[in-house]
Amino acid sequence: MKMKVGVFDSGVGGLTVLRELLRTLPQAHYSYLGDTARLPYGSKSSATVTRYAVSSSKFLVEQGAEFLVIACNTATALALNEIEASVNVPVVGVVTPGAEAAAALSRSRRVDVIGTAATIASHAYTKALSTWGIRTTEKACPLFVPLVEEGWIDHPVTEHVARIYLSELGLIPHGQREDNRADVLLLGCTHYPLLEPLLSRLLPDGVSLVDSAAATAQAVTQIMNVTPDDQAGSVRPPTGTLKFFTTDSPEKFRTLGAQFLGRAIPAVELISLPE
Amino acid sequence: MKMKVGVFDSGVGGLTVLRELLRTLPQAHYSYLGDTARLPYGSKSSATVTRYAVSSSKFLVEQGAEFLVIACNTATALALNEIEASVNVPVVGVVTPGAEAAAALSRSRRVDVIGTAATIASHAYTKALSTWGIRTTEKACPLFVPLVEEGWIDHPVTEHVARIYLSELGLIPHGQREDNRADVLLLGCTHYPLLEPLLSRLLPDGVSLVDSAAATAQAVTQIMNVTPDDQAGSVRPPTGTLKFFTTDSPEKFRTLGAQFLGRAIPAVELISLPE
Repeated sequence: MKMKVGVFDSGVGGLTVLRELLRTLPQAHYSYLGDTARLPYGSKSSATVTRYAVSSSKFLVEQGAEFLVIACNTATALALNEIEASVNVPVVGVVTPGAEAAAALSRSRRVDVIGTAATIASHAYTKALSTWGIRTTEKACPLFVPLVEEGWIDHPVTEHVARIYLSELGLIPHGQREDNRADVLLLGCTHYPLLEPLLSRLLPDGVSLVDSAAATAQAVTQIMNVTPDDQAGSVRPPTGTLKFFTTDSPEKFRTLGAQFLGRAIPAVELISLPE
Repeated sequence: MKMKVGVFDSGVGGLTVLRELLRTLPQAHYSYLGDTARLPYGSKSSATVTRYAVSSSKFLVEQGAEFLVIACNTATALALNEIEASVNVPVVGVVTPGAEAAAALSRSRRVDVIGTAATIASHAYTKALSTWGIRTTEKACPLFVPLVEEGWIDHPVTEHVARIYLSELGLIPHGQREDNRADVLLLGCTHYPLLEPLLSRLLPDGVSLVDSAAATAQAVTQIMNVTPDDQAGSVRPPTGTLKFFTTDSPEKFRTLGAQFLGRAIPAVELISLPE
């Protein structure tokens, strides 16, 4: 029997997680919900994000999801417990898998974390990484999401903004914080993987980028106790169904979403959620 | 008897309109609602913006407003008719007053308009200005709102972005579109007045900035048939009450809002609106 997996994000960023899931678990059925009418979550309060995330999660379970992936850093950081309490299916968020991947990679035992204002204010990554004895420096990067949404992925303005954020973290210029420097930069927002080429170019040698998408997909396959299909040469095309739901313009979701999913999005259903 | 005026925006930008109203109509009672839990409106669809704007407007009328000011360009551009149909009080939006002020100022009969993606896509300003025989060029500037919200009002990154937008309009470098050039730049978003110092510095001589805030306040005083108090030397302090409502963090509203209102905001009440 094929597992029905619900994947939820405030918008299209979580499609980077779905893309990884399609590689590691191509045999599952997927329903993806982007709550675009109420995005962004990252600038809003914990109470509001929790209300939105719970109603979105319940929708996916009502649609038949037997497993929920919260593919949104802000919703995971602020509302994972409340989501788990509101549904009767297993729930996996992106924070723990991302933190575990960063901890496994860091030799200096220092990780820098970037994310939305709400994710950073929650200190969810600092708490998660401290369980592995990792020290963190956190930095909210509120302009990265609008820049990515504008399509300015590798643009002089985005480089300008990234240089400001990375230098405020002390990651650049190279050598400024040489002693005891972080050797991993954790991308704590599902929009940020699209900035990887730009960020990689700016970072000094010896600093690795980690995003939660691949780590979360691995965690899901482990929990489901199936063998990942993501072996070299053995990636198979998805064999399950793929459904997309959005709370605002389906056309905008299709257009913007394709670059996050890495493939065309065929059809998107417009739904409305209770406040 | 003092008039009760409701002022509505998706967030804090409409406080620039309230600031002008407090100068021209200091004797009124004001209730201001910022629908911050669902902002921004400017990147969302017409149907979603209309639903949000109608529920927000109804709230203000339920609170006793006898007159509504839609201090949000996107809500005015996309939903003014629907708002008028949903309440039993007079409604004034920012588009017509702003367009009228720009038309009165333009000698070249050409006006350039900047705003959110949704406002520009609606062509509301082009339609309004065409009734005065004015030709327009429109340009969506989606990064201006997040830059202002970040507090990067007069910042190298904001200047970088503004140079790109203004050069795409052909307004800079000076002389590029000398023939038949627009001599007015209409700021079609209530966040943009905070960028006036920066934009003024970049624009060539002979191009004036117009924002809807002052023009809207004048229109309201005209409709109410009262004499504006905004005479030189005769500005009086507000004598009515001033209430603020928000759908997300009151603390964030107070902090961010003060720079739009130009004065401290004492208390903000958190409310929830029907979806």
